Amino acid sequence: MDHADDTFESLRMELRRGSLVLAVLLALRSEQYGYTLRSYLAGAGLEVEESTLYPLLRRLESQQLLVSEWREEGKRNKRFYRLAPQAAPLLDRLVAEWRGIDTSINALSGKKTS
Amino acid sequence: MDHADDTFESLRMELRRGSLVLAVLLALRSEQYGYTLRSYLAGAGLEVEESTLYPLLRRLESQQLLVSEWREEGKRNKRFYRLAPQAAPLLDRLVAEWRGIDTSINALSGKKTS
Repeated sequence: MDHADDTFESLRMELRRGSLVLAVLLALRSEQYGYTLRSYLAGAGLEVEESTLYPLLRRLESQQLLVSEWREEGKRNKRFYRLAPQAAPLLDRLVAEWRGIDTSINALSGKKTS
Repeated sequence: MDHADDTFESLRMELRRGSLVLAVLLALRSEQYGYTLRSYLAGAGLEVEESTLYPLLRRLESQQLLVSEWREEGKRNKRFYRLAPQAAPLLDRLVAEWRGIDTSINALSGKKTS
């Protein structure tokens, strides 16, 4: 049972990993800083550890998909992130890709698409 | 444009990677050998390279999620794969997980769930 749980957990993480990039890019069509971004994702049903989120944000910024800036808010400096304007078409294509994958998974699992 | 295309392609691969495991496990609820499995996945809209599929099949078998056996068919030896019976509950959980992620992505992208 422990072995099955470990295997499930590793497959679950694998399943979430790719979709998390998409979720973060979608969320950052509106500017957010780390805390509000995590809350926003959690509100959509995606709990993300800080240790997962922050490296991902840095990576996406290095890929020029996000832009960030430090600003003071509530007397604290916070790093605000948002989707890079030139990444919007890429995000649209990724969403279309996601829909295609979901259609395939539904076809394979025998679920009727609605 | 080339840079954007490369970035899109790497994100697309990342998005597909986790879902491919789910797709393969779903497809192998019925026994298949490599060629028919690839055709079946392609028919569901998921084109998979042999160089991606075969290592994945070996990995999933080593994780005891699949079982395989060599049998002669049409005068050729073929390796047939199917979902390990004890992996069926795990697959159900993964499908539920997928549906949850899809609900989150739809919520974030502003698509009404139907």
